[in-house]
Amino acid sequence: MSEKPLDVLEASLGTEVIVALKDGTERVGELSGYDQHMNLVLADDQDTTIIRGDNVVSIRP
Amino acid sequence: MSEKPLDVLEASLGTEVIVALKDGTERVGELSGYDQHMNLVLADDQDTTIIRGDNVVSIRP
Amino acid sequence: MSEKPLDVLEASLGTEVIVALKDGTERVGELSGYDQHMNLVLADDQDTTIIRGDNVVSIRP
Amino acid sequence: MSEKPLDVLEASLGTEVIVALKDGTERVGELSGYDQHMNLVLADDQDTTIIRGDNVVSIRP
Amino acid sequence: MSEKPLDVLEASLGTEVIVALKDGTERVGELSGYDQHMNLVLADDQDTTIIRGDNVVSIRP
Amino acid sequence: MSEKPLDVLEASLGTEVIVALKDGTERVGELSGYDQHMNLVLADDQDTTIIRGDNVVSIRP
Amino acid sequence: MSEKPLDVLEASLGTEVIVALKDGTERVGELSGYDQHMNLVLADDQDTTIIRGDNVVSIRP
Repeated sequence: MSEKPLDVLEASLGTEVIVALKDGTERVGELSGYDQHMNLVLADDQDTTIIRGDNVVSIRP
Repeated sequence: MSEKPLDVLEASLGTEVIVALKDGTERVGELSGYDQHMNLVLADDQDTTIIRGDNVVSIRP
Repeated sequence: MSEKPLDVLEASLGTEVIVALKDGTERVGELSGYDQHMNLVLADDQDTTIIRGDNVVSIRP
Repeated sequence: MSEKPLDVLEASLGTEVIVALKDGTERVGELSGYDQHMNLVLADDQDTTIIRGDNVVSIRP
Repeated sequence: MSEKPLDVLEASLGTEVIVALKDGTERVGELSGYDQHMNLVLADDQDTTIIRGDNVVSIRP
Repeated sequence: MSEKPLDVLEASLGTEVIVALKDGTERVGELSGYDQHMNLVLADDQDTTIIRGDNVVSIRP
Repeated sequence: MSEKPLDVLEASLGTEVIVALKDGTERVGELSGYDQHMNLVLADDQDTTIIRGDNVVSIRP
């Protein structure tokens, strides 16, 4: 019963995720989109942020 | 209701975006173009700047 | 009697693995998924973490 | 009315551009050529320089 | 009488190899698997370790 | 009247070039070959050197 | 009369080469194999070493 990484992202759409980046920072927001490179769209009440996937270390739904 | 990262860029054309780069700097300008590598074209009243996508950490429309 | 790296990952699904990352940290959890880039899904009792494969140094099942 | 990054480069042929590189330096010259990797050819009165695209941060026409 | 790098790996299956990594460390073990990216499977009496190929500097059979 | 970067390399075959590398050093020699990755072959009276293209910052014919 | 980089490697098979790596070290040995990524096989009287091509700065036959 394996979960592919992108399937876990798909299942996390609309929920809050914590994204750890290679620069040591974290970004928190609702995952509103992603693509196969792990480019991400995070949203909160006020802002939308696109994160380029090659900066991502980990994503915790 | 997912938003692909490139669709968010498409929807941001003509609006101001804040681009964070891997060197720790930020660039602000109107997004006047992009491509699938996240190469970007930013414009302000006086200048146009092409940013090579592999430098991008995040884009905030 | 060779074992391909991805076959070893496949055989490790559902078992605990120790993942060493390029930032010098380790992540421990049950391997609940992976893909051909070595993107990984680790789970423990409470959390699921997606690790982007390009951060991985080694995986010890 | 979007401008693709490579279209902006195409429109900049024959004009002076300022190229910021990842090593923190800048190169100035007339853009006399480019390709899809953003490899660039810069010229001034005396010299021609080929810049490998993966060093480029930004190009300001 | 050329030896392709991957052919040397193939011929080294089941023998001890010393793997130098980009972080300056070495890993020693029996090579029990590899793939075309030089992802490796090393084994000793107790453990199996998958090494992601992009960390590898050299392999000495 | 655009000059593609690889066309400039082609036109520079047999002439002296100065190659700046990412490690901050320069290599000088007659360009006796190249390929589409900007892997280069430099020659002087005594030696031939192959430079892997991903190390190259710039080439001045 | 151009020499492609890989053709120079082919012509160097069986001869001693000096390989400069990105970590600042050099490896010397008889070139007994290579592939299109510039993965190399170096041999001396006692040892064989596979070098992953992305570590290579230059090769001097």
